[in-house]
Parts: sequence; C-alpha cells; structure tokens
Amino acid sequence: MDNYVFGFRAVIEAIESGKEIEKIYLKKDAQSDLTKELYATVKGHNIPVIRVPVEKIERITKKNHQGVLAFISPIEYQRITQIIPKLYEDAKSPFIVILDGVTDVRNFGAIARTCECAGVDAIVTSQTNTAPVNADAIKTSAGALLSLPVCREHNLEYIVNFLKDSGLKIIAASEKAVQDYTAISYTEPIAIVMGAEDKGISPEILALCDEHVRIPLLGNIQSLNVSVAAGILIYEAVKQRV
Amino acid sequence: MDNYVFGFRAVIEAIESGKEIEKIYLKKDAQSDLTKELYATVKGHNIPVIRVPVEKIERITKKNHQGVLAFISPIEYQRITQIIPKLYEDAKSPFIVILDGVTDVRNFGAIARTCECAGVDAIVTSQTNTAPVNADAIKTSAGALLSLPVCREHNLEYIVNFLKDSGLKIIAASEKAVQDYTAISYTEPIAIVMGAEDKGISPEILALCDEHVRIPLLGNIQSLNVSVAAGILIYEAVKQRV
Repeated sequence: MDNYVFGFRAVIEAIESGKEIEKIYLKKDAQSDLTKELYATVKGHNIPVIRVPVEKIERITKKNHQGVLAFISPIEYQRITQIIPKLYEDAKSPFIVILDGVTDVRNFGAIARTCECAGVDAIVTSQTNTAPVNADAIKTSAGALLSLPVCREHNLEYIVNFLKDSGLKIIAASEKAVQDYTAISYTEPIAIVMGAEDKGISPEILALCDEHVRIPLLGNIQSLNVSVAAGILIYEAVKQRV
Repeated sequence: MDNYVFGFRAVIEAIESGKEIEKIYLKKDAQSDLTKELYATVKGHNIPVIRVPVEKIERITKKNHQGVLAFISPIEYQRITQIIPKLYEDAKSPFIVILDGVTDVRNFGAIARTCECAGVDAIVTSQTNTAPVNADAIKTSAGALLSLPVCREHNLEYIVNFLKDSGLKIIAASEKAVQDYTAISYTEPIAIVMGAEDKGISPEILALCDEHVRIPLLGNIQSLNVSVAAGILIYEAVKQRV
C-alpha cells in the first residue's frame, strides 16, 4: 500500500470526500468521541476498521496519527449487486470469479490478468483475508486490476446467495471434489469460486456452491498453484461459452 | 543460489568429484595455466563458464576466490537424450515441456508444479536465459523440482531436432499463432514449448515447431502470465490423453 492518511479529522474527511479507502487501522483501546464519529462516518461505506496495537501504526508513520490510519485504495471498488443487473440489461450472460481467501499478491494479480484476458465480467473478494490491491498486484496483473471491476464484499455468503438468486450457477474448485472440471457445463451464467492457497474454499461457501469440480492430479503434489488452477477452469469456461 | 565453492583447485575438485555445477563465474581477464586446466576439466560436463567482472564475484564472497566461483546445484540435471529412449522402452508416450527463456523464478517453479501434477515426463530448459533452480524456485514448485526430471541443455535447437527425430510433435505456444490450442491433437508423443515472459519463443525454435497454437484473448491485455498459459495447454493435453 503506497498511499495513506492519518489522524481522525483527515481520515473522516477522506471518507466523506468519497476517497476509496482500502482499510482503516484503529488503535486497540481508542474510544474517544472522535472514535465514535469515525465509526458513524464509516457506516454504510463498506470499509473495514481493524483494531491494531499502536505499534502497527507506528511502523507505518511516526507522525501525529492519533491512533488512526487509513489506506487509500489505488482502485475504486464496485458492487456486484449493481454489476449483475447491468449485465442482464445488456443481454450478457454473467461470468464472475470469486476469490475466497486468496492472500498472495502475485496470485491475485495473475488471476486478475487471466480474468481480463478471458472476458470475465468481475472479480469478487472478501474484505478480509484478501490480497491488497497494491503496486505489486497491479504490476503482476499487467494492469488488469485498473480496468476489470473488482468487488470487495463484506459478507461473501450473502453475495453467493445473491448470485444464486440472480440465476448464476456457483462452481467451486476443490481438490476434494469427485467430479472432473470438464464434466460440467459453463454455458449458463456462472461464478467460479477459488479458495485460499492453503485451506481452499471455506466450508460455509463450499456448502452454498451448486457444483464442486476437481482438476485431475496425476503426481504426488496435492494441489496446483491457485492462479494456474483458476486459469484452467476459466479457459474451460471460455471454450464452452465461445 | 545458496551453495558455492571458489578458488581453482576447489572448483576443479568439485567438478571431478561429480558435484552438479549450476554455472561458473570466471574473472574476465583470467588466463593462467589454472584457467586452462579449469576449461579442460569443464569440457564434456555441460557446465556454462561465464566471464564476469571481478566485482560480481566479490559481491558473493570476499575470500580468496582467485577469480573463480562455482555454484553448486541443489538438483541433479538429467539429459533428455537419455530420458526419451527410456520412456519408449517403458511403453510410455513422452510428454515433455520445453522452456525457452523463462527467467522468472516463481513462473519456473509454478510451471514445474503444474508439470508434476499433470504427469509431464521432464522439463527441458536452455543453459542461459533460464531461471535458476534456487530455494525460491523449489518452494514455488511445491517440491516438484526435486522429483521431476529437469534437463538443462546447451543447444535447444539441437534438442528440438532430436525430439522431432524421436517422433515427438513439437507444439509452440504463441500469441501470434492462428490456430486455437483446442484445435489440435495432443494424444501422440508431444513437447509443448513455452517462451520468455517478454519476447515469447525465439524465432529459431519457433521455426522448428510442428504446430503453433494460441490461447484466445478476449480483453485488451496481449498475453497471459506464462505459468497460467502453460497450465492451460498442459491440461488440454491431459484431458485428451487420459
């Protein structure tokens, strides 16, 4: 993250002026009137406020931060709840990629690049357990993160249910699945869900998915790199949808 | 690279004792009798000797290196000319991946991981313009580089011709190709060639390939990440060969 503001007034003004805030660090024990005002301002803006030891803020700046620091995002996040109706209005069949816990910046960037190349309509991530959109991510994405809609959503379960209600088939990539990834259809409106590098998709999200598919593994290693696996699934969809 | 020896006697002994040497740095103007002895020892061992300014060696060690330093490889390279006949003897249909200039350590590691997962028989790289097999590469490969045969070959054109003479179809991945990657057959003995991150496959190698295929790009970005592209092609082959 290259860009930040600190101090209660500056952070509140940044939010009110419509700046896209990635996240806010707030000193663990902060509970002044300004703290309350900050929470009131954040409300409805979809910005995570993370309580941290003051040392974590000190490591970023030693200036008069008053225990609050906001990271300005280099991109403007969008809302998937607004994108889906728009796609249907334009007579398009939505093609969404959901990242449930991909935290490695280079994996995130590589997946975004693949999505741009494959004509994916938007990437959805959660607010926490997510790689930041920083300079490294943008570079690895070959700029895709600057043009492809990215939706950073507070409640991923809610969003998956919204997508199901909107007629999308939710496809989970999981090594534990029985079904081969080429055995299903990708021609209808779809969302492909990729999980965390270590633990895969969270059980709550996995339970909501309509299809669970696996990529065959013929060696001894238990999984592919997540950006490679995403590429294989996304291009299976491209092949079927063209 | 984590492991090295320096000084003429030590380097010559390392070679003679059968240690796998990644490459040798030799001071630009070195031309003593020991230099001649070094070259005589290297002969037939397939080890690149790179003439460098002495400062390049000094940056690695300030000890009494005499202008010569050898990097010990963490893996034992194999020869593709020995692997192919062995595969045929075992009644297997060779499936090889050739990397012509992939220099990024993480891309190299991710491709090796995909190859292990997909049952690829060996990776062939050139001696120069190649990511080193270092700790980062091994980590990104999830250990694949420690089990999958890697052949680091002096003359890639010679090797491609050898593979063709051995009955392999050589498939080049290139954004400039006209043919879709799903339009060809991967069921016979094959080698898939992936090119450098920036320039793709070198013209000399490209001219030798039997098939040129492209992965469709539907956005504005001109290419996929090379490890993602490799994954897509390798798994198209897996699907057809199973």
